[in-house]
Amino acid sequence: MESVLFEKKGPVGWFTLNRPEERNALSLELMEEMQEKLNCVSKDRDVRVVVIKGNGPAFCAGHNLREMTEDDCDIRHFRKIFSVCSDMMQTLHKLPQPVIAQVHGIATAAGCQIVAACDLAIAETGAQFATPGVKIGLFCSTPMVPLSRVIGRRRALDMLLSGRFISAEEAEKFGLVNKVTDPDKLAEETEKWAMEFAQYSLFTLEFGKKAFYTQADWDEPSAYNYAKEAIAINCLAEDAQEGMKAFVEKREPEWKDR
Amino acid sequence: MESVLFEKKGPVGWFTLNRPEERNALSLELMEEMQEKLNCVSKDRDVRVVVIKGNGPAFCAGHNLREMTEDDCDIRHFRKIFSVCSDMMQTLHKLPQPVIAQVHGIATAAGCQIVAACDLAIAETGAQFATPGVKIGLFCSTPMVPLSRVIGRRRALDMLLSGRFISAEEAEKFGLVNKVTDPDKLAEETEKWAMEFAQYSLFTLEFGKKAFYTQADWDEPSAYNYAKEAIAINCLAEDAQEGMKAFVEKREPEWKDR
Amino acid sequence: MESVLFEKKGPVGWFTLNRPEERNALSLELMEEMQEKLNCVSKDRDVRVVVIKGNGPAFCAGHNLREMTEDDCDIRHFRKIFSVCSDMMQTLHKLPQPVIAQVHGIATAAGCQIVAACDLAIAETGAQFATPGVKIGLFCSTPMVPLSRVIGRRRALDMLLSGRFISAEEAEKFGLVNKVTDPDKLAEETEKWAMEFAQYSLFTLEFGKKAFYTQADWDEPSAYNYAKEAIAINCLAEDAQEGMKAFVEKREPEWKDR
Repeated sequence: MESVLFEKKGPVGWFTLNRPEERNALSLELMEEMQEKLNCVSKDRDVRVVVIKGNGPAFCAGHNLREMTEDDCDIRHFRKIFSVCSDMMQTLHKLPQPVIAQVHGIATAAGCQIVAACDLAIAETGAQFATPGVKIGLFCSTPMVPLSRVIGRRRALDMLLSGRFISAEEAEKFGLVNKVTDPDKLAEETEKWAMEFAQYSLFTLEFGKKAFYTQADWDEPSAYNYAKEAIAINCLAEDAQEGMKAFVEKREPEWKDR
Repeated sequence: MESVLFEKKGPVGWFTLNRPEERNALSLELMEEMQEKLNCVSKDRDVRVVVIKGNGPAFCAGHNLREMTEDDCDIRHFRKIFSVCSDMMQTLHKLPQPVIAQVHGIATAAGCQIVAACDLAIAETGAQFATPGVKIGLFCSTPMVPLSRVIGRRRALDMLLSGRFISAEEAEKFGLVNKVTDPDKLAEETEKWAMEFAQYSLFTLEFGKKAFYTQADWDEPSAYNYAKEAIAINCLAEDAQEGMKAFVEKREPEWKDR
Repeated sequence: MESVLFEKKGPVGWFTLNRPEERNALSLELMEEMQEKLNCVSKDRDVRVVVIKGNGPAFCAGHNLREMTEDDCDIRHFRKIFSVCSDMMQTLHKLPQPVIAQVHGIATAAGCQIVAACDLAIAETGAQFATPGVKIGLFCSTPMVPLSRVIGRRRALDMLLSGRFISAEEAEKFGLVNKVTDPDKLAEETEKWAMEFAQYSLFTLEFGKKAFYTQADWDEPSAYNYAKEAIAINCLAEDAQEGMKAFVEKREPEWKDR
């Protein structure tokens, strides 16, 4: 049985974490399989949106603690785990497609990190989020990286220092998830949302996503210098010329890259 | 007929985008006129607050697409448009006066960028905001710059990748606008708000606004190093000495720079 | 009578600003006393959480204006005040313990800065927050530094340029405080909250807090590079090994550093 399932339905690529009995803990094996499949999808121009979800009672409960408490664990072992994990998380930003986390049950520690590391997130009403590493003496330092950038300092410190669960509603208020929906409509709402992005040119989505993360950490004048050149180049693209003309002519655009 | 009207009423300088039949699209002509008038107001010490609003059914619908789909459009043409636009937007931060966006109808693409690029914003209840470039193959890369800095990563990505409209209430929740008010009270509420800032010393407003944007993108220790020297120098200023003394003596201050 | 009281109750260290008749204005004397006591507590491994509160009707009304309007005030005098103040504020981030601001009454100017400079904050329902320096010609440039980083640009500019008061509820919405509670439950709720952090290993709290502020201002890839090494090293720590084993064995951990 694979640790991560991948399925294409129309323009949407669905990743499913598939270790339900371990609440989809991120074992080295699972992360390496995920990385491989992300690499494939990054080259697949038929996939225009990506969703990550989990099988079983939880979205993802973080790292596999058994793997981290065996007798032969040394610094090289830990470095490997967190290096593989950080690469996988950063790959989500580098994918050409928008990536949506679809969260049910709990998303804790590195599971919460996946939610923060995706571009967008939707959660069922009962979903819960936490970075509880402090409770076991292992501060959630890597989840902290995208979490503090998405929900801000004060609320991130609250979650990180207390380890407490926040509800889907709080997560929405904090800006960690964009949408909250009934559990029995979660799959349907996610698909509907994904299909919104899928109607756009993948060239444009990729161009925009790359531009977004390129400038996100820069000072504003540098970001403007970059963005004004990026958009000028964007204007020359076939899909932009087609899109602008279709708009002026009041017709639907026909994308080349879709 | 001018593309941008400017009127002084007491200490408030009102800019009005004045291409109602084009929903105040930012043509090169309009932007250059705006830039010229912003340059004038930056030297006018009688104006202590600036408001930007629009004539007609919309605040501003972004760039002029006709100007961008003509046959002779080349990279130099696009570079010029976005260079003029980015300069104008950044001028809003460089003005000595606080700048308020007063939004009615829609504010889309570069129109939404104006809202994000002002210091403050007020909107009528029915106002709507979007960065819909993705829909025409032209990602809103330049609006992204101030938008992502004002409303944060996750919500900015939602707006940028989906192109969807957000309501005035959502805009307030996201921190894009500070106030939402009834359509028939919008002008009155804006003026009342503007007059609050207008009672302060322009020296202080300018000093503070400059300090704010100078440190906004710095790491915190650097920001402290700068701010502690800035405030020590501020203490020596005539208007600060007068203000502090008036406070201790329980009387109204008399500003020199007003 | 001391300007700042310090008392240990179990694992919680309580700082009390103690110039009630001056609404706990931050005189040079008070700030130097506070700094000295913060230095002590930074070395006291029996204190696992710190709370800062105020005696009298206000949490803290900012700087002592009398000290800043005397005849012999020169730039060196002002530099000293803001240098001592900025050092004290930055010490709050450098303490090994989580620091909670417990706010009642008003927290204005540098008083509001303390709230923003702590790691976490709780306020009574009637509490009010402002950075009103603009009203006396002395822009709140130093409070601006942590405030703009905690509540974001647009809302910080609103507070800084208008000088207006925001309520505890607004402060919670802006992310300036984490919790709002009834006035008659403030002390009790703060203690209960503090005791949550106190059950964790101080090694872990210190490690996490240091990691948090180290990466807070970095670009995301640099933050990941740092955080993945930090968490690998964290794994080797005695309290992490104990915590992970206790979790796997379903028992309570016994911290070494508590």
